[in-house]
Amino acid sequence: MITTSLDHQTKTVDFSRSLKHVPHFSKAESLVLNLIRKEQALSRMDLVELTDFSRSKVSGCINSLQNKEFVIERGVSNNTGGRRSVLFSLNGDKGLLFGADIGATSLDLIITDLNGMQLWRYAESITIKDGPIKTLDRINNLFETHLDEEGLTNKPILAFGVGVPGPVDFKRGMVVSPPIMPGWDRFPIIEYLHKRFPDAIIAVDNDVNIMALGETVQGNGVGEENIIFVKIGTGIGAGITCEGKIYRGTCGCAGDIGHICVDKAGPLCPCGNLGCLEVVAGGAAIAEKAMQAVLDGKSSILKKYYDENNQIITAIDIGNAAKEGDEISIEIIRESGELIGSVLASLVNFYNPSMVVIAGGVSKIGNILLSSIRQSILRRSLPLATKDLKIVFSKIPDDAGVFGAVNLGLDLLLSNEMRKSKIFSQ
Amino acid sequence: MITTSLDHQTKTVDFSRSLKHVPHFSKAESLVLNLIRKEQALSRMDLVELTDFSRSKVSGCINSLQNKEFVIERGVSNNTGGRRSVLFSLNGDKGLLFGADIGATSLDLIITDLNGMQLWRYAESITIKDGPIKTLDRINNLFETHLDEEGLTNKPILAFGVGVPGPVDFKRGMVVSPPIMPGWDRFPIIEYLHKRFPDAIIAVDNDVNIMALGETVQGNGVGEENIIFVKIGTGIGAGITCEGKIYRGTCGCAGDIGHICVDKAGPLCPCGNLGCLEVVAGGAAIAEKAMQAVLDGKSSILKKYYDENNQIITAIDIGNAAKEGDEISIEIIRESGELIGSVLASLVNFYNPSMVVIAGGVSKIGNILLSSIRQSILRRSLPLATKDLKIVFSKIPDDAGVFGAVNLGLDLLLSNEMRKSKIFSQ
Repeated sequence: MITTSLDHQTKTVDFSRSLKHVPHFSKAESLVLNLIRKEQALSRMDLVELTDFSRSKVSGCINSLQNKEFVIERGVSNNTGGRRSVLFSLNGDKGLLFGADIGATSLDLIITDLNGMQLWRYAESITIKDGPIKTLDRINNLFETHLDEEGLTNKPILAFGVGVPGPVDFKRGMVVSPPIMPGWDRFPIIEYLHKRFPDAIIAVDNDVNIMALGETVQGNGVGEENIIFVKIGTGIGAGITCEGKIYRGTCGCAGDIGHICVDKAGPLCPCGNLGCLEVVAGGAAIAEKAMQAVLDGKSSILKKYYDENNQIITAIDIGNAAKEGDEISIEIIRESGELIGSVLASLVNFYNPSMVVIAGGVSKIGNILLSSIRQSILRRSLPLATKDLKIVFSKIPDDAGVFGAVNLGLDLLLSNEMRKSKIFSQ
Repeated sequence: MITTSLDHQTKTVDFSRSLKHVPHFSKAESLVLNLIRKEQALSRMDLVELTDFSRSKVSGCINSLQNKEFVIERGVSNNTGGRRSVLFSLNGDKGLLFGADIGATSLDLIITDLNGMQLWRYAESITIKDGPIKTLDRINNLFETHLDEEGLTNKPILAFGVGVPGPVDFKRGMVVSPPIMPGWDRFPIIEYLHKRFPDAIIAVDNDVNIMALGETVQGNGVGEENIIFVKIGTGIGAGITCEGKIYRGTCGCAGDIGHICVDKAGPLCPCGNLGCLEVVAGGAAIAEKAMQAVLDGKSSILKKYYDENNQIITAIDIGNAAKEGDEISIEIIRESGELIGSVLASLVNFYNPSMVVIAGGVSKIGNILLSSIRQSILRRSLPLATKDLKIVFSKIPDDAGVFGAVNLGLDLLLSNEMRKSKIFSQ
């Protein structure tokens, strides 16, 4: 129980005093900014219609946002018949947005301008077990080195969104009792990054939540109201959107589907329960079955990949073996797809989403996995719930995380919320 | 699949032309109305703070709403130190709100004023299988007779909310392929009621959704952001709230948890699948097990109730028998509680609600059922998801439905939405 162990000294960092490039926005300005962000270019009349504000209130907001240099004129509309109106966009030149997607063994970084235009994209292998200081220092150094090289050090960094592979107490911006992140428990990530980038709004969330956000803003989820985004890797987790926004639940841990029981007599999960979905159907279970098939001499095709790859078998190998007709691989994939689909069928009945998105390393197995999951969902969900349900792979499997991280920071930057974040020092 | 069979002739009833007592509200007015509804009495300054509108905009809204007779002055605030301010409330005298909760075998009706003050409450047994015309005529006659008797016929009926025990296509306001409502499939409920009450806003929703709404507005759910409201009767269904509002999902069928599989080799459900939760753990399964125990001579305590009640055993009887120490009854209740709890554990991991509410006829079994459900949820959910989770019975088990129905109508009445509803004639 984290309540009893959260007796750390607390202090509040008031970002507003130090964020010289980030002004306070009124609720009305925040609404206007987010509408412009979504539609990319809007006229004053568009905004009057979308906000129900008076013309003078919209003009006041636009003037204020132009003074704050967050909004600029961007051409005129081509109305047929009527007067041509000036269009407004976010000011891409205002500053930079940073996004970091920290995985268990991978690091993905991105820099964009305020309009979301990609300026830099970078990926490398890391080990989350190196702990927060080594990992965050590496991230900070990578960003700073790039800014130096590109001569961008004079550009303000407006917002910095971070995804981490563990449960996040979103309001406090820290990881809580993460199973695979030794040394990160309650580490003050925001405070640590804030020292290095004192002028940026900083936000931290769970990696699957930011992937769901990225998919919603720039992937298959665009225009979808309610999605369940499923990341199948070693673990299995879900990000949920409700009316297009990340749904985090009451304690910030919504979407933790990896520990739903699928077999009461199944193997022991590190969480202490038996037969959790991720221990029965996740990447480790798939890899173990494939490895066993090789060791038992049951699959010559898998053996071939095993020998070629220095005695390692990847999800892509198992997918390829299945495509080559390897029955053991097909069976392994179907078993996992069936189990994952049976859990998703329950969740589809409960949540009635418009879309289920499948992503994560294991999804690289390919269409055999997707079709097993789909069949399992369709067989066990109610017809009304699956009538218009789309079940798809991520459109941006490698970028959903970093796109989401940038948008997480941008959400907070353009919001009307107080520029404060409680930081727990250890 | 309902898409292929929905080739009915469609027409649109434009409520706005005929609703002489229901004006159009601007977005700002709708916001102000709903804030006053929630807080019951607010000053202009309270509203400035809550809306971020200017003082003149708030005053403009209040003036307009006073002219429309939806808002009245209601005393002054007792601010300490500062000036006393005029408080505004909804105008209870403006007109009446009707609520009807139609169950499979029960009918609950309510009339309130615009402030939600209860003016009349009525319940009787019905049979939903009598079909829509007989049932709706009965409801209309009961309302009209009461209005006549009380001399209320001169009061306008502003809104009429209806709950029905089947899946509802909320946008169209009709029941779709209901399993236990013969004759109701796609019957134009709104259009039919509209003929009798042409001046009222009319809304129809699933019975569990309106119960969840009622619980949120007036029961244990007050102040709870995300609840799962579970009705355990012959069937099992759930109503979900997200940030205090009913979450209906993409097709309006969210919360249909009765057909989640709990036993792949279980008994056949009328839906065509095996081992659905409601066929294994619902009221019919419990009653059947209890009846079998009596016929097998295994429970003298249950036999006593059976003989006293004309060979019928109710949920209350089984609860009482368990309290008297009847082991068979305790076992039957525990089995159901365990199964329902195991499904809820999955949903708690997924949705991370702040509260699970248990209601419906079977909940009258009492605390033994609640504690089995609670134990099962706590055993299988993640600690972070159950840290602050409340698992409780409904505070208003007999009234959640009608309270919800009234509030459903009121939601639409005070909204800024177009006063239109597509009606499908058959």
